[in-house]
Amino acid sequence: MEFTLLILEIIGTIAFAVSGAMTALTRQMDIFGVTILGLTTAVGGGAIRDIILGRTPPAMFTNPLYALLAAAASVAVFLPSVRRFLTRRRHVFDTVLLWMDSLGLGAFTVAGIQTAMETNADGGVFLLVFVGVITGVGGGVLRDVLAGNTPYIFVKHVYACASLAGALLCVLLWRPVGGTAAMLAGAAAVVALRLLAAHFRWSLPRAQ
Amino acid sequence: MEFTLLILEIIGTIAFAVSGAMTALTRQMDIFGVTILGLTTAVGGGAIRDIILGRTPPAMFTNPLYALLAAAASVAVFLPSVRRFLTRRRHVFDTVLLWMDSLGLGAFTVAGIQTAMETNADGGVFLLVFVGVITGVGGGVLRDVLAGNTPYIFVKHVYACASLAGALLCVLLWRPVGGTAAMLAGAAAVVALRLLAAHFRWSLPRAQ
Amino acid sequence: MEFTLLILEIIGTIAFAVSGAMTALTRQMDIFGVTILGLTTAVGGGAIRDIILGRTPPAMFTNPLYALLAAAASVAVFLPSVRRFLTRRRHVFDTVLLWMDSLGLGAFTVAGIQTAMETNADGGVFLLVFVGVITGVGGGVLRDVLAGNTPYIFVKHVYACASLAGALLCVLLWRPVGGTAAMLAGAAAVVALRLLAAHFRWSLPRAQ
Repeated sequence: MEFTLLILEIIGTIAFAVSGAMTALTRQMDIFGVTILGLTTAVGGGAIRDIILGRTPPAMFTNPLYALLAAAASVAVFLPSVRRFLTRRRHVFDTVLLWMDSLGLGAFTVAGIQTAMETNADGGVFLLVFVGVITGVGGGVLRDVLAGNTPYIFVKHVYACASLAGALLCVLLWRPVGGTAAMLAGAAAVVALRLLAAHFRWSLPRAQ
Repeated sequence: MEFTLLILEIIGTIAFAVSGAMTALTRQMDIFGVTILGLTTAVGGGAIRDIILGRTPPAMFTNPLYALLAAAASVAVFLPSVRRFLTRRRHVFDTVLLWMDSLGLGAFTVAGIQTAMETNADGGVFLLVFVGVITGVGGGVLRDVLAGNTPYIFVKHVYACASLAGALLCVLLWRPVGGTAAMLAGAAAVVALRLLAAHFRWSLPRAQ
Repeated sequence: MEFTLLILEIIGTIAFAVSGAMTALTRQMDIFGVTILGLTTAVGGGAIRDIILGRTPPAMFTNPLYALLAAAASVAVFLPSVRRFLTRRRHVFDTVLLWMDSLGLGAFTVAGIQTAMETNADGGVFLLVFVGVITGVGGGVLRDVLAGNTPYIFVKHVYACASLAGALLCVLLWRPVGGTAAMLAGAAAVVALRLLAAHFRWSLPRAQ
């Protein structure tokens, strides 16, 4: 299970970094901006989580594996040859990115809950769920605020809701079925909801 | 006194959540975005305060009463029937909201000072005043940054100044007259200044 | 050395506050907004550093010297007579500000590393370098986000890169030559790179 989660987190880190780097490219940022925005998107949610939980310095600083991976993925997106390759295979690339992003959202959400459980196991359902969702979507919010966009989770798709539903499932199952099964179920729910929402273009009600 | 402060904080939480939710509505956000922006506006100032003071996890996570209240108020604003009702009574609603927001600003400011006193009583006047103001206006700054607006406190009215003056009064009175009286005086000063500024359209000098 | 760093930090605080205040003026903010934005730019990087390192409350609250200095510099920029004076000597002013800002960036970067060393000496190179850069550029990022601009470090000049290179040099030299010499070398590298980049209009590669 540890290993599965590690793989999913690596996939998510790359996917989140790519989404940050591509946002930076649409804003004409230079290679440094692309790298920093990719990095922030990938590890920002976890950093906010650690600060909320009082785990300082955040894991992204003491264990730089994810940060370096995110930086490398961002630089790769910046390379013209890579971008040409991706542009020619736009449709395939979009599908791959959607899957990777969904797996990452699921992995980050349940990893956030696991970290909160370790730190403050009796923090209550609200703390655990909220920290899971922030771990999942926080990096994307930072990306959008830094790039000057309205945060994606506020306006489009059932993105944060998928994270919320999976987090709730994970927390509620934690005692009855154990942490491992609860995390698998929670992550699977996030991924399924996120993919279904993208496929069927689900939207939440909006005011007229 | 505890009870008075609790009532004022509840009023402020609702008022701040409504202001966040209404900002989200003007940005065409869906029901999730409306709820999250309302929630962030209502409890964001207190969360920043707790992180600055090293009280982690912030109270909004361990005592979710305020967060749930804010979410409920935000969802209510989203409902078409509620919005129709409010739109028809626009003038009354604006006045009620102004009063609630002023009471909330006063309550949050002095509650922030009280929390800082408990955590770090010898932190000095600057720490106490600043933390009080951040508790009062921090949620609104988060709301405006997330919605892509220039923070309200930077451009309009004597909003943060009212919080600053009340915070200073509260801190200076704390030893001479005791915490309870100081908090009452500070909160009253905030409310009075905020209402007077709104009524007489006071503005601070601006560069030509 | 302590004294040199103190002087450089004071210069940097003034320069950063002036840049924040001038950004606020271009956004038509009132005197309060000008002061708060100047203050945030000057002490924001250090505050983020302290929160990341778990040093709460951040030094800006417990030792308000820098905050008061930044507030005073911001108010000065707001005064019409000062602004008229500066506008008439635009060219000289720009050069002075560039030098002050560069010295400040260097001083803040190595001061950040020193703080991280004190708190968590075995945090690894990545933690130390990153915390140094955040101390140097964090205030400017907050300034740009609050003013609704794309963060400067993402789009222009070799600004954060100068901080990054100097931070790396400082951290790598720390053990071989001692903290004092390492900080001097690191700060000098930041200042030199920043000034050279501004003079020769160096830019990083940008995607077409």
